[in-house]
Amino acid sequence: MDQPIGVIDSGVGGLTVARELMRQLPKEQLIYLGDTIRCPYGPRPEAEVVQFTLEMVEFLQKKQIKLLVIACNTATAFTIDLLRERLSIPIIGVIQPGARAAIKVTKTKTIAVIGTDGTIGSKAYPKALKQISSDLTIYDLACPQFVPIVESGHFSPEAAKHVVEQSLKPITNLRGLDTLILGCTHYPLLAEPIKQVMGANVEIISSGEEAAREVSALLSYQALAYRGNRLAKHFFYTTGSPELFEQIANRWMDYPVQHVENIVIDQSLVEKNKSF
Amino acid sequence: MDQPIGVIDSGVGGLTVARELMRQLPKEQLIYLGDTIRCPYGPRPEAEVVQFTLEMVEFLQKKQIKLLVIACNTATAFTIDLLRERLSIPIIGVIQPGARAAIKVTKTKTIAVIGTDGTIGSKAYPKALKQISSDLTIYDLACPQFVPIVESGHFSPEAAKHVVEQSLKPITNLRGLDTLILGCTHYPLLAEPIKQVMGANVEIISSGEEAAREVSALLSYQALAYRGNRLAKHFFYTTGSPELFEQIANRWMDYPVQHVENIVIDQSLVEKNKSF
Repeated sequence: MDQPIGVIDSGVGGLTVARELMRQLPKEQLIYLGDTIRCPYGPRPEAEVVQFTLEMVEFLQKKQIKLLVIACNTATAFTIDLLRERLSIPIIGVIQPGARAAIKVTKTKTIAVIGTDGTIGSKAYPKALKQISSDLTIYDLACPQFVPIVESGHFSPEAAKHVVEQSLKPITNLRGLDTLILGCTHYPLLAEPIKQVMGANVEIISSGEEAAREVSALLSYQALAYRGNRLAKHFFYTTGSPELFEQIANRWMDYPVQHVENIVIDQSLVEKNKSF
Repeated sequence: MDQPIGVIDSGVGGLTVARELMRQLPKEQLIYLGDTIRCPYGPRPEAEVVQFTLEMVEFLQKKQIKLLVIACNTATAFTIDLLRERLSIPIIGVIQPGARAAIKVTKTKTIAVIGTDGTIGSKAYPKALKQISSDLTIYDLACPQFVPIVESGHFSPEAAKHVVEQSLKPITNLRGLDTLILGCTHYPLLAEPIKQVMGANVEIISSGEEAAREVSALLSYQALAYRGNRLAKHFFYTTGSPELFEQIANRWMDYPVQHVENIVIDQSLVEKNKSF
């Protein structure tokens, strides 16, 4: 099928999912929308996250997407059930793929999850994990300082290492812990310091990478994959500054992110949230 | 949903898939059928593999399975499209999950596949890989000696190492190769010597392990997962000797494989093939 895959995120973090989608599914076209101006979603109340996400989805639906990826853990936690009821296309969040991958990987059945306040508060990961297997020890920890570092677009390795070290203290040296889920799509951009702090015995699961793997599977099972031969072109939209988006994106992506378009989803909301 | 998952294989190799299903989905009940008396499928003509597989599926359908796993690469290569047309339940083979996982893992975009004569001759892996990404270098190699070693139930590590070394010669030291797909569910039982021969720079993908991961995802997306709390009990059937099946199974499985039942699928076929 020739239609694009839609990807939404609260900002640039979902680009880690987009990067994996491009790598794992080079023939599939993406339309990415980052709600940069209202980022971060993590500390916002549930009702607001739901409203913002629905607005983003409305924009992508006009682009005739064949599948939606919610590349934001907070938005997944609060909206995936609702969106699955409302939309007829398949919807893939980042929480269940991360949970399934962690269960595949862990040998000690001891798993930790880090994420935003919203994601951790929702208990979406422990719920998803326990639904598959009752026999797990699960730790979770909110790391509210990580997203602002990444979205700022400039952080020194030393500063990042320091923040990561301080934030992860409660889960370093936990007995038997062998698997850590990065329950926020911004966190793979801090993967290096996180790996250093957690040590070589803890396997790091990127929920975004795993979501891309499941998109690949679902496209196939639902006969939605593009069957021809092409190297796909992608389109990027942001509710914030296209220049900053391009700057940050091109620092991580192999694909040249150009011609990013600014879109205004809801002027009143944008005004209201400028000071956020 | 309280119904079981059906798993078929040409013999005991599919138990590597069953083991992963039990580990990754401890609440889901399995019904396993191994066509041991007609094993191996690898050297058989396509029409025969199709007929045998359909007979096994017929047996499992009477058990009200909610999802079918074709835990045999040869049977997957020859029957998955046909079965997807005929059955209304989801069907997961082992080839596409292995292909998707290899694409996720490879950095050099250079992948090798080993399997039976039937699987390699069908070109099912190269087809599945190229359908997702055109930009891959793919090597494939039939290793017809591996299945008989495993099904015999007794092999010394030294003898296995020798056979593996000889068989894999054409793909050792290939430039840029970083990913090897075990395109036969028997092969994970030879994972140790295979790893030794291929070296630390080649990641080994077990197509069965990846199939289990996709079963987990598909149960969730199709709302077919068991939602209660239980540690599932499983049932095992073989067309061959229950004693030999139990012996081999209990050497590898954490789950105690007991009360294996012998079933006769088609007496005339059984007679005809006893000398095979």
